[in-house]
Amino acid sequence: MFNSYMDLAFKEAQSAADRGEVPVGAVLVKDNQIISRAGNRTLEMNDPTAHAEIMTIRAGCEALDNQRLTGCDLYVTLEPCPMCSAAISFARINRLYYGALDEKSGGAESGIRYFSHTTCHHAPEIYGGIGARKSAELLRKFFAKKRSGAILGD
Amino acid sequence: MFNSYMDLAFKEAQSAADRGEVPVGAVLVKDNQIISRAGNRTLEMNDPTAHAEIMTIRAGCEALDNQRLTGCDLYVTLEPCPMCSAAISFARINRLYYGALDEKSGGAESGIRYFSHTTCHHAPEIYGGIGARKSAELLRKFFAKKRSGAILGD
Repeated sequence: MFNSYMDLAFKEAQSAADRGEVPVGAVLVKDNQIISRAGNRTLEMNDPTAHAEIMTIRAGCEALDNQRLTGCDLYVTLEPCPMCSAAISFARINRLYYGALDEKSGGAESGIRYFSHTTCHHAPEIYGGIGARKSAELLRKFFAKKRSGAILGD
Repeated sequence: MFNSYMDLAFKEAQSAADRGEVPVGAVLVKDNQIISRAGNRTLEMNDPTAHAEIMTIRAGCEALDNQRLTGCDLYVTLEPCPMCSAAISFARINRLYYGALDEKSGGAESGIRYFSHTTCHHAPEIYGGIGARKSAELLRKFFAKKRSGAILGD
């Protein structure tokens, strides 16, 4: 089952890339129902907090009319950054499935390793490395294209 | 000058407390002009990301039509958490002034110490402990009232 949700997260990531955004996508699932899905929109929305995970969590809370996403699982194509890791914790997400590790800017299991820290008061079950090669390849192609000048923004 | 901006942040924190929200307030300033201001609204908005700093950053980016808040200073009544610290970094905020340290959940200079970590790619100048006693007292009173049952929510 998780492969199809992760495939959907990859579709969101690809759509983000097509918009010139860093290609990361996320899908929120509860009881085998998709609650929300989003790709990164920081450039389009002029909002540095508009990462795929934050957008998905906010939309999920709105859909479920609750600031706690108890019983929900989040599928993300890249390891969440510290901002998103903390938001995942605050939202009480049950399971986190993610693609490639982000050694430069990740914060879930690399970098600050938020979920292992004493100031983290809720950690999801974590399953990393799902579609990691695809996730890393998507990012590599995006940044190669960007360096070539085919994508604007920073 | 920073005292008056921090005073305004405290007004936002007090308004948050009056709404039954954890009392934290923030003010964003550029060239001696207030760009945005907000208090915590996580309960009201059913949004675990609606911390005072995130709300202020999002409103500031909208006001300045830019996802980067270069040259802006942020005044917050409490040490930012890891989520907000990362958002402050992504937004390229210039200076961060904050009140009390938050040893339980902070992430700027306590806890994960995000701004000192190698995965943090922009750190503001940081001035902590401004109005720390007032900040801590506001929180202490709020949680005492909450424990007494006078405030609902969690």
